[in-house]
Amino acid sequence: MSSIEILGLVAATLTTIAFFPQAIHSWRSKDVSGVSLAMYCTFTSGVALWMIYGFLIESLPVILSNVVTLPLSLSILYLKLKEGKISKSKD
Amino acid sequence: MSSIEILGLVAATLTTIAFFPQAIHSWRSKDVSGVSLAMYCTFTSGVALWMIYGFLIESLPVILSNVVTLPLSLSILYLKLKEGKISKSKD
Repeated sequence: MSSIEILGLVAATLTTIAFFPQAIHSWRSKDVSGVSLAMYCTFTSGVALWMIYGFLIESLPVILSNVVTLPLSLSILYLKLKEGKISKSKD
Repeated sequence: MSSIEILGLVAATLTTIAFFPQAIHSWRSKDVSGVSLAMYCTFTSGVALWMIYGFLIESLPVILSNVVTLPLSLSILYLKLKEGKISKSKD
């Protein structure tokens, strides 16, 4: 593994670690009221495209960070969509 | 510009757009109480390393997204550090 790849993996680890607490907090508390649906759709689409881009340029750090972030982001999006349905059915 | 690079730029635009509202909200309201200092230090270091990695692998999408995100992230970190000083001086 080259030193460039190691640098990229450290970068990927740091930004992914920073995203974890928010995802775990949202998932545990089921509180996603502070999260905008439009924002999470945008973010999740972006992460999916980054993952494809990572595979195309064969960059392990880009692939790994987005493979880890995508399910987290999708799970928050799922909670948000479910919350939307519940509040609609309450109306 | 190759189609791979365009895909990467779309990905970069989406994830950067998703980060903007949070950064602008924190900056306008000066309210960073919901933001953990440790998390922002980790994130900002990660973004700085991603930027260097982007230059090393010559990936325009990785460079651009982190060049835009770094000052935003640094500005929130600055607010957070200032907030820490104020609450310390109040003790």
